[in-house]
Amino acid sequence: MLLLKNNPIILKLGGSVITEKDKPLTPNLQVIERLAEEISRADIKPLIIVHGGGSYGHPLAKKYGIAEGFKDYSQIFGFSKTHEAMISLNRLLIKSLLKHHLPAFSFSPSSFIMTEDGRIQTFNDEILRAALKLDLIPVLYGDTVFDTKRGFAILSGDQIVSALAIKLRAEKIIMGIDVDGLYNSDPKKDPSAQLINEASLGDLAKMIRNIGESSVPDVTGGMLGKILELRAAVENGIEALIINALKPNNLYKALKGEVVLGTRIRR
Amino acid sequence: MLLLKNNPIILKLGGSVITEKDKPLTPNLQVIERLAEEISRADIKPLIIVHGGGSYGHPLAKKYGIAEGFKDYSQIFGFSKTHEAMISLNRLLIKSLLKHHLPAFSFSPSSFIMTEDGRIQTFNDEILRAALKLDLIPVLYGDTVFDTKRGFAILSGDQIVSALAIKLRAEKIIMGIDVDGLYNSDPKKDPSAQLINEASLGDLAKMIRNIGESSVPDVTGGMLGKILELRAAVENGIEALIINALKPNNLYKALKGEVVLGTRIRR
Repeated sequence: MLLLKNNPIILKLGGSVITEKDKPLTPNLQVIERLAEEISRADIKPLIIVHGGGSYGHPLAKKYGIAEGFKDYSQIFGFSKTHEAMISLNRLLIKSLLKHHLPAFSFSPSSFIMTEDGRIQTFNDEILRAALKLDLIPVLYGDTVFDTKRGFAILSGDQIVSALAIKLRAEKIIMGIDVDGLYNSDPKKDPSAQLINEASLGDLAKMIRNIGESSVPDVTGGMLGKILELRAAVENGIEALIINALKPNNLYKALKGEVVLGTRIRR
Repeated sequence: MLLLKNNPIILKLGGSVITEKDKPLTPNLQVIERLAEEISRADIKPLIIVHGGGSYGHPLAKKYGIAEGFKDYSQIFGFSKTHEAMISLNRLLIKSLLKHHLPAFSFSPSSFIMTEDGRIQTFNDEILRAALKLDLIPVLYGDTVFDTKRGFAILSGDQIVSALAIKLRAEKIIMGIDVDGLYNSDPKKDPSAQLINEASLGDLAKMIRNIGESSVPDVTGGMLGKILELRAAVENGIEALIINALKPNNLYKALKGEVVLGTRIRR
């Protein structure tokens, strides 16, 4: 196994940050450019970027019922089309990163990661390590993947982030999303929602008990579910910092380790 | 290991077939459409397609000296740009195949294949098998890949074809190129060049001795070198059929096992 000199930062760029969430197949090019500039200015390495699908992934995946697994042959085309849509979004990000002199290199998750019942089963990180050793910035994305039980599945960028962080002993995880962090209720619906600046896994467990597990997605606007996907990484001692990547300079500050508004999740 | 019910046909589409060889980054869309239609009409499965780079791969790879391996940091951008160019060509082919109701699915070779000194070292075919089991048509391409000795390397579509054929015990290999097959001299330069309809590995070895090894690439217009890349597969008992994919209906006939002009290589 190739040992890395330094532990990488794993950066997740949310689909709702880099795409127009409500317009199918529409990138948010202005934000992509700004984020590429901030990453370039921060000049951090080793770095791995994982991005979500936003309006590229979700509408197609939903239309063809990809998340439910293989039911009939017609889905097969949707499976491939969703993958192609993700590649086209990925290419826009890569192009912008290269333009800002960042040596980004695209990795296709479905080519080397398989799931079992929706959870990562096969994941050889050897080639990612080779890329990091050459000072490249691997860029991955939430993808349609092959699944040993269901035929196929959706592999979220968040699940990739958590697995990567553990495998590569990440320095930290930065989650760039479209709100300031984790709130005690959904900030998009409740104006009195309060940002949680810091939480331990114990705090999160308590929060879930208070809300009631089934209401968690609604109450926190989906954020708590995303954070729970990172639980395994945080349990391994890796800190996760959730920031609003729609606000200029937040990502730069987070990468540099400067003070920034957000939610810090610690073991 | 997932066992396949039937042995797949491995189809190589040459870069000089699907691109305008002399115009950088220019696809031959008319040919791509026609080939997709022929593949659709033949309705053969399991099938795997591997394509070359033509004017998408070669100019960039040459400009940045990718084939020579990692020498200095500036090449890193060329490495990524060549990969991106190959993805953009791949997307055009996938789009055309999907349009003709072929369930094509893109695999990125650099995400799961590593070379050692230019030769395939790591190559897990588990996910390809899962794709074939779902009746998908995996589509791969010659790519810039990570190399354990050189840092990076060019992995030709031909080398992928040979390795795939052996791993998946291919029914046969079909090589779609821009001439009718292997000639006894370069048909693009010598009007008296004669097509060889059938050759054994022994015949090829004899031919090489007669020509003199160093003159082989020039004398046969590069074809013999391409065929030698398939030697390992042919030694495993897999037949390779070389046809002119620029001539309408040749690919259809080859896929259906009908009589077609070309060169047949047997053990």
